[in-house]
Amino acid sequence: MPEVPHPLSDLSVEESNLARDVVLKLHPGTVIDFRAIYLLEPNKEDVVQFLNIEHAGKLTPDTPRPPRLAQVKYDVIGGSEPTRYHESIIDVVKVERVRHTVVDQEYHASLSIFEFERVLECVQKSSMFQEKMKSIELPEGFEVVLEPWPYGGPDEADGQTRFFQTLCFGRDTRSGNPDSNFYAYPLPFIPIVDARKMEVVRIDQPATGGKGEPLTGVSHKTRVLDHCRPAEYVPELIPGGTRTDVKPLTVVQPEGPSFKVPEPNLIEWQKWRFRLTFNPREGAVLHDIRYDGRDVLYRLSLSDMTVPYADPRAPFHRKQAFDFGDGGLGNCVNNLTLGCDCLGVIKYFDGLVTNSDGSAEVTKNVICLHEQDNGINWKHTNWRTGRAVVTRRRELVVNWLITLANYEYAFQAVFDQAAGIKIEARATGIVSVVNIDEGKTAPWGNVVNPGTLAQNHQHIFCLRIDPAVDGHNNTLVQEESVPVETNPDTNPNGNLYEVQSTAITTSSGLNLDPFKNRVFKVQNISKRNPVSGKPVGYKITTPPTQLLLAAPNSIQSNRALFARHHLWVTKYKDDELYAGGRYTLQSRNEKGGLADAAARKDKVADEDIVIWSVFGLTHNPRVEDWPVMPVEMLQVHITPSDFFTGNPAIDVPSNKDIGSKLANGDCCETSINGTDA
Amino acid sequence: MPEVPHPLSDLSVEESNLARDVVLKLHPGTVIDFRAIYLLEPNKEDVVQFLNIEHAGKLTPDTPRPPRLAQVKYDVIGGSEPTRYHESIIDVVKVERVRHTVVDQEYHASLSIFEFERVLECVQKSSMFQEKMKSIELPEGFEVVLEPWPYGGPDEADGQTRFFQTLCFGRDTRSGNPDSNFYAYPLPFIPIVDARKMEVVRIDQPATGGKGEPLTGVSHKTRVLDHCRPAEYVPELIPGGTRTDVKPLTVVQPEGPSFKVPEPNLIEWQKWRFRLTFNPREGAVLHDIRYDGRDVLYRLSLSDMTVPYADPRAPFHRKQAFDFGDGGLGNCVNNLTLGCDCLGVIKYFDGLVTNSDGSAEVTKNVICLHEQDNGINWKHTNWRTGRAVVTRRRELVVNWLITLANYEYAFQAVFDQAAGIKIEARATGIVSVVNIDEGKTAPWGNVVNPGTLAQNHQHIFCLRIDPAVDGHNNTLVQEESVPVETNPDTNPNGNLYEVQSTAITTSSGLNLDPFKNRVFKVQNISKRNPVSGKPVGYKITTPPTQLLLAAPNSIQSNRALFARHHLWVTKYKDDELYAGGRYTLQSRNEKGGLADAAARKDKVADEDIVIWSVFGLTHNPRVEDWPVMPVEMLQVHITPSDFFTGNPAIDVPSNKDIGSKLANGDCCETSINGTDA
Repeated sequence: MPEVPHPLSDLSVEESNLARDVVLKLHPGTVIDFRAIYLLEPNKEDVVQFLNIEHAGKLTPDTPRPPRLAQVKYDVIGGSEPTRYHESIIDVVKVERVRHTVVDQEYHASLSIFEFERVLECVQKSSMFQEKMKSIELPEGFEVVLEPWPYGGPDEADGQTRFFQTLCFGRDTRSGNPDSNFYAYPLPFIPIVDARKMEVVRIDQPATGGKGEPLTGVSHKTRVLDHCRPAEYVPELIPGGTRTDVKPLTVVQPEGPSFKVPEPNLIEWQKWRFRLTFNPREGAVLHDIRYDGRDVLYRLSLSDMTVPYADPRAPFHRKQAFDFGDGGLGNCVNNLTLGCDCLGVIKYFDGLVTNSDGSAEVTKNVICLHEQDNGINWKHTNWRTGRAVVTRRRELVVNWLITLANYEYAFQAVFDQAAGIKIEARATGIVSVVNIDEGKTAPWGNVVNPGTLAQNHQHIFCLRIDPAVDGHNNTLVQEESVPVETNPDTNPNGNLYEVQSTAITTSSGLNLDPFKNRVFKVQNISKRNPVSGKPVGYKITTPPTQLLLAAPNSIQSNRALFARHHLWVTKYKDDELYAGGRYTLQSRNEKGGLADAAARKDKVADEDIVIWSVFGLTHNPRVEDWPVMPVEMLQVHITPSDFFTGNPAIDVPSNKDIGSKLANGDCCETSINGTDA
Repeated sequence: MPEVPHPLSDLSVEESNLARDVVLKLHPGTVIDFRAIYLLEPNKEDVVQFLNIEHAGKLTPDTPRPPRLAQVKYDVIGGSEPTRYHESIIDVVKVERVRHTVVDQEYHASLSIFEFERVLECVQKSSMFQEKMKSIELPEGFEVVLEPWPYGGPDEADGQTRFFQTLCFGRDTRSGNPDSNFYAYPLPFIPIVDARKMEVVRIDQPATGGKGEPLTGVSHKTRVLDHCRPAEYVPELIPGGTRTDVKPLTVVQPEGPSFKVPEPNLIEWQKWRFRLTFNPREGAVLHDIRYDGRDVLYRLSLSDMTVPYADPRAPFHRKQAFDFGDGGLGNCVNNLTLGCDCLGVIKYFDGLVTNSDGSAEVTKNVICLHEQDNGINWKHTNWRTGRAVVTRRRELVVNWLITLANYEYAFQAVFDQAAGIKIEARATGIVSVVNIDEGKTAPWGNVVNPGTLAQNHQHIFCLRIDPAVDGHNNTLVQEESVPVETNPDTNPNGNLYEVQSTAITTSSGLNLDPFKNRVFKVQNISKRNPVSGKPVGYKITTPPTQLLLAAPNSIQSNRALFARHHLWVTKYKDDELYAGGRYTLQSRNEKGGLADAAARKDKVADEDIVIWSVFGLTHNPRVEDWPVMPVEMLQVHITPSDFFTGNPAIDVPSNKDIGSKLANGDCCETSINGTDA
C-alpha cells in the first residue's frame, strides 16, 4: 500500500476516524448521531491533473495532490438548538473543516440502520400498536414481524415531519425456524412513526378488498391471516426438500486469475485498468477506466433508482423507494460468500461503514472480482481449408449485491476483451405483498399466495456514465437508420437506408426509439479514426424499457423526474452524482437532480459531459415470482465504435480448453443418428 | 436405441438410403442429382395421439405409429425432359412414394454445396473471367479467391433463369498460409453464372467510389488492390502475436453432467424433457418440450433469416441472403470441437447430410449439449437473522453454429431451472466488404480497412414457436401497462397504472411497443392458475429491434414480408414451417410465408396456434467488427407466467461451490481499505 493514498481511493479507517474527531471537537456540548462518513472525491480538474502525471509515469513524492476530503453526515442533538441534520467537509490532511452546512429542514437526511432500529423499537413499545395487535387475533403460534420503510412522498398535511412507515407481517413460530417466511402473512395495518419524536402517531389501515371494491375503508375481518398459507424458501422448510439432480459444476483456474491488483484499489486485466471505490450511497464505483493506455471513462456508477408501486389505495401511493438516496445503497450491501455469489478464483474487497458513534467499521467482502467464461468471443471458419479459429469470451466481473428489506439487487460491471463494458442489474428477492381478502383478485396486482397480493410496480434505475473518450471533451451523438423511398437517382432498387447523425448540443433528456435503431454514441470529435475517418467513439446502449407510469402531476412522478427520459446528457459539475437529487428521502419533488441539471441548458457539444442511462422493469408480478423471484436481468452496454483500428479482441488466443470432457455412457445414449458419442 | 424409431426422430442412415433407392427406381434412365433427404415430420394430429400414449406410459409394440416419411429433393437430369427440380415423399416403412411434385420453375430449389462447387469450377474455367483477371493486374504474389453467393432477388429481365453471383477477392500467397485473410482484398467485379447452362453470362462491375459519386460506372483504376492492406485473424499471422495474459479457466463436473439422454434424441434435465432433431433446412429443432410432466411447446425452431444489404449501387441490391431457405442452414453447420465451442462435460450429436448421389453421410458433432453456470438464480437475505439463501443459476445449453461464407451465427437454446427458455443468436465472422477507392468514404457503409468498405445491412431472424401450454389449444394475449390520469374515484394519488389485456382472435402480424410494456403471453384459457385465478400461460419476449428498412415496393422487401412485423400468430398447419416461404432462393416475392399464412384470417383464439418471433440487428459496421467481429447477441425469452403455483426453481439447492478459491497474494494487493483479502 502506498504511503500516500491515491486521490481516487476510499478513506482509510484512520482517515475516517480522524474526520469524526474533528467534527466531535467542533460541536462541544452536544450529542452527535453520525449517519455516514466517506470520501468526498476531489474536483475533477485536480484529479485529471494528477492522473496525467500518473499515466505519464512521472509521479514523485512531490507531485501535487488534490485535498483529501471526508464528507461527514450527522445529526446534532441537544445543546441550545433543536436537533438538526448537518453536513461537514473535513480535510483529513490539514485536519480542519473546510465546509459546514446545516441542512434546510425541507430536506431529509438519508435514513441510517441505527435509525431504523429505533423506529422498530418505538413501534414495538407503542401502546397504540399493541392494542391494534390484540384486536386482530393472530393465529396461534404467530408473532408480529415489523418491516420499516421510508415514508415515500408525503401528503401536503404531513409538512416537514420526518416519518417512517412500518409494514407488518405475521410469522409462524411453530417450526422453530427463525427464517420461516413471514411475507406470506401480510397484516393490513401500517404504524406511522414520527422519527423526531420517536412515537407512533397513527396506524394506517389499507383496504384489503379486490376488483370493484372501495379504495378505502377496512373490509377485512378480525382474523386476517386465517386464509393465508405458508410459502417457504429456506431449504429445510421446502415441502419435499430440494432437488437432488444438480451435479456439481466448478470453475477451476489452476494458474490463478488473469487480473492483477497491484495497488489496493487498482485493477488491471486484459489491457483494462481502473480503480474501484465503495461508498454508502452508490455502492461500488469505478474510476479512471482505461483501455490499452487510452482514456475511456472517468467514472461509472449506479446513480439512483426509484421503485413506485401502483396500488391506488392509500397509503400505498407512499410505497415508493429510492434505494440509493433514501437509505444509501452501500449500507445495504451483502457480505459475499466464497462459492455462493461467484465461482472461480475470487478477490474480495472490503468496505467501510460508519457506526452511529462515528467510528469506522470494516465490512468484509462487499465487492468481489472474478473472471467468467461467456461462450464464444469470435469465430470464423474458412470453409475452403476447414480451419476454424474460435476464441472464448473471457470477462472480468465486479460484483456486488444489496438487500433492501424484502428485495435484492445484484449489480455487475463486466469488462470484456473486445473493450466493451456491460452493466448488469439482476432483480431478485421477495416481491412486496399486502393482505387481500379470501377469494378476491385485484387489477393492481396478482395474488401470488392465498391472501397475498403482490402489487404492480416499477423499478427504474439510472446509471451515471462520465465518459472520457480519448480525453474529457466529448459529444453525445444520436444516430438513426431511416428508410429511404425508392428513387432513380439515389435509391434505384429501394434497398438503401440512411444513417442520420445528430449531435446533441444542449443539456437535455432524450428518449430511445429502437424501431429507428436510434443509437447514442459518445464521440471525441477532435480525434478521427485513422481507418474510417469517423470521430473516435463509444456507443451506449440502454435497454428500451418503459418510463415512469405515474401520472405527471402525481408526487410519485414529481420526485422522480429523472425517470421521464431514457438518456440524459448534462455538463459535468463536481459532486453532481445523484439523478433523483441529493435528498430523496421523503421528497415531494426532485431537487438538484437530472431535471435541474438539464434545465441549465448548458452547451454539451465538445465539452466535459455526463451521460445518464435510465432503464427499468415494469413488474406486474407472476405467481412464479413467489416466494423468491428468479432473477430478472437488465443490461446497459458501453462498446467501442470506431475507437480502435480493428477488433480489440483479435489477439485473444484460441487455445483449446484442456478441461472439457465428453459426456460418457452413464448419462447418455448414442447420438441422434445412432452413431456413438 | 429402440427398435422402432420415435416419430420425432431423424431418419437413420438406413432409412435415408432406402428413400434414395425408392426415388432412383422411380426415375429410370435419368441422372438424379440429390439435394437433400430428411424426415418429413408426421402430421401433428398423429404425433399428439402417439405422445399422449407415450406420456401416459402406455407405449406398446402395437401402439399405432404415424407414417415414417422421408422428403427427398432432387434434380432429374437427362431422360426425355429438360432438367427439373422434384420433390418426393417416401414412406420408408411401406417403401413407397406417397407424394411427388415437379416443382414449378417459378420456384428455385435451395442451393447445394455440390452446386456451389460446380459454380466455382465454372467461373474458374470461364474465359470471360480469365480475361477480366488479366486486365486488372493483381499485385505480385496474389491469387484470386471466389465466393459464390445466392443471386438475391432477381431483376425483371432475369426471368426464371437460375443464377449465382460470385464475389471475388485477392489472396496474398506470400505468407504461404492458406488462411491469410483474403476478405481484406475485395475485387470490384462479380461474375454471374447461369446455373442451368453452367456458364458465366456476364461480369457485374460495381462502382468503387464514395460519397457523392455516381452509383454506377467503373471509377477504379487497374491496380484495384494496391491500396488495400492485410487484416489477419489466424493467430500465427497476427502482428505481435496473441496476448499472453489469459490464464486458463476450466469448467469441471467431477460427477458428470446433470442431464440424461436415455434415448438417442431424448433429453432430460431438471424437470425438462424434450427431443432433438437436426435437419438441413433449420439446423437443430426441439420437439415435445415438457416441464415436470406438463406440455409447454410442441416445437421450437429457427425458421428463417434475411440479410439485406443497403448499398444502393447495382448489383448490391441483390446481396440479400436467406440463410435458412437459400442454402439450408443445416448444410452450413460447424462440426464442433471439444474445449473450443463449449466448456465442461459435453454431449455431441451428429447429423445426417446428403451427398449428391443421395447417400446419407454422418456429419459429426453438429449440435452439442452441455451445462453452464449463469450467476445467481435467486437470493434472499433475512436481515434480521443474517441468513442468506442463494442458489446458482444452472442452465442447459443446446448449441450449434453455422458458417455462411464470410459470416457465422451461433445459436443456443438455453433451458433454466425456473422453467424458462432462452433462444440466443450470436453473430460473428467476417462482415461482407467491397472495394472502395483510396481515401474515400461512403454513406452506406464504413471503411474498416484501407480499400475495404463494410456495407450497412440488417440481419432479421424469425423464431418459430409452436406452443402447447398445458395442451394444444392456446390463445395469444397482448398485455400493456398504461398510465391512468389522476382522478378522485379510481386514482386519487396518481400512482395507478392499468394492465390491459387483449386476446388476438385472428391470424395476423403484430408489433412490439416496449414503452407501453407491451407483453405477449400464450395462454390456455381453459386452465386457470389455482393461486392467481388467471389463465396459465407463457410469456414470449422478443427483443424490440428494427424491422426491415428496404422500401416497401422493393424486391428486398417483397421477398421478406415476414420481416415487416415483430410477432405473428397463425393457425397451426402441418408442414408450415418457413417464415419467408418454402422457396426463398432467387424469390421475387414471399410466397407461402408468414404474410400468406396470416392472410387466411384464421381464428386463433383458443386454437392450435403458432407464434413467430421476428428480431434482428441493423448492422452498420464499426471498425471494431474487423477483421472478425466480436459476437453481437440477441435473445428471445419464453418464460412461465402464472403457469406454476410458485417459483419453479425454489427447490434448487443452495450448496456452496467447493471449487471456488480466494485470489492470493500473487495477483493481488490488500483490499481497498487496507485489510487483507
